[in-house]
Amino acid sequence: MMKKIKKINAAILIIGNEILSGRTQDKNVAFISNWLNSKCGISVSEVRIIPDIEKIIVENILYFSKKFNYVFTTGGIGPTHDDITAQSISKAFKVKYEYHKKAFKILEKYYGKKKFNDGRKKMAKMPRGAKLILNPSSAAPGFMIQNVLSLPGVPSILISMIENCRKYLIKGSKIHSKTINLYTVESNISKQLGLIQKKYKKFVDIGSYPFFRLGKIGVAIVTRSDSILKLKNVNKDILKLVEKKKIKILKT
Amino acid sequence: MMKKIKKINAAILIIGNEILSGRTQDKNVAFISNWLNSKCGISVSEVRIIPDIEKIIVENILYFSKKFNYVFTTGGIGPTHDDITAQSISKAFKVKYEYHKKAFKILEKYYGKKKFNDGRKKMAKMPRGAKLILNPSSAAPGFMIQNVLSLPGVPSILISMIENCRKYLIKGSKIHSKTINLYTVESNISKQLGLIQKKYKKFVDIGSYPFFRLGKIGVAIVTRSDSILKLKNVNKDILKLVEKKKIKILKT
Repeated sequence: MMKKIKKINAAILIIGNEILSGRTQDKNVAFISNWLNSKCGISVSEVRIIPDIEKIIVENILYFSKKFNYVFTTGGIGPTHDDITAQSISKAFKVKYEYHKKAFKILEKYYGKKKFNDGRKKMAKMPRGAKLILNPSSAAPGFMIQNVLSLPGVPSILISMIENCRKYLIKGSKIHSKTINLYTVESNISKQLGLIQKKYKKFVDIGSYPFFRLGKIGVAIVTRSDSILKLKNVNKDILKLVEKKKIKILKT
Repeated sequence: MMKKIKKINAAILIIGNEILSGRTQDKNVAFISNWLNSKCGISVSEVRIIPDIEKIIVENILYFSKKFNYVFTTGGIGPTHDDITAQSISKAFKVKYEYHKKAFKILEKYYGKKKFNDGRKKMAKMPRGAKLILNPSSAAPGFMIQNVLSLPGVPSILISMIENCRKYLIKGSKIHSKTINLYTVESNISKQLGLIQKKYKKFVDIGSYPFFRLGKIGVAIVTRSDSILKLKNVNKDILKLVEKKKIKILKT
């Protein structure tokens, strides 16, 4: 009997001039995507990096939240003037941007009443009705409203919070993946690999990615599928091709 | 007399399932954006990461090429079945996808007639009318058509080709930038920094980015403007604030 496959997707919205300008190297896309894949069976379908401009954030939140099951945002939830993610999402969903009682209490306790200034209070302002994503490293919570989950931009803080997103997500079917690293060049196998991809068109994605390791050129063949059986079959075909062409496999 | 400011923008389209899945960490956005900024006075306004799906590539090429002065694509111009950037761009601009004579010659010479197989020949196929972006490291050229410049996904190869894009680009006014690293937390200065941003609203962008260095917490204040004078003035105001708050500056 065929197991029913549940496909759940997500998009990531990276909000921040510092990523667009190249000043800061984004690391959150790879981390969130790997986590969603491996822990939740959720695939990331699109990523956008946009500036700290309210109108642009609003447009993208509305577009992504309609099109995908979940939307993750990173950045723009700190205390400074350029942190406008929470107010922009409030605008997008036409809800009040106001103090979240529990977030206010958490931050007040963390900083102490005397040091709880306006900038810090700002981090307790969220779209009305938001649910909190707790932050074990620096207290200021992220939040979820509708299907949008907002996380901070600093990778170490984001990483510490990601497990607190899990309870808000519906799990999809696990996507299985296998990588074979070959000491060859892409153009040596591209034709036959294309034929194999055709054969398994709807069931397995085959990706081919050149690499350089210790001065040698190679190709990583990555297969991905929600069916373990189909994945095994496609990899049998690939190994036959490798044998026929007498290509060396790099053991990792 | 005021110097006339020439604002030129660009968007980057990262094409590749391997970036979306988190398997590969993108490094091209930061590199291209920094290069455009520092060498060409061009600002990147938006980035999208999309899968190897023709329909999605076509839509995004059309949208970006209308909205921005230049569009850079990375990925999908190799020899394998999942490399569909050139054919998708041909479709977007409704031109033939065919062998580019000069690209064919370059590749034939590089591989030698005997080893110039179908996969390698594929890398000479481009949208009709494309201009070449020469590749000093692995021969296969990128190309430009209309305002779209297509580069490979492998960072080391992309880096080796970027200077060959310059002749196709109109230079914008240089964007000047200054960073002051402070040993403080964002919420200590967020209110006053917001007021300074208000004062220079249209002329200077102020960004505030937390960092952790050698176990200490700090904030990098980044100011960006096309006017050196305005940049100097805004930084005077910031330094006054720093002095008033008795914040230590991290010399780098």
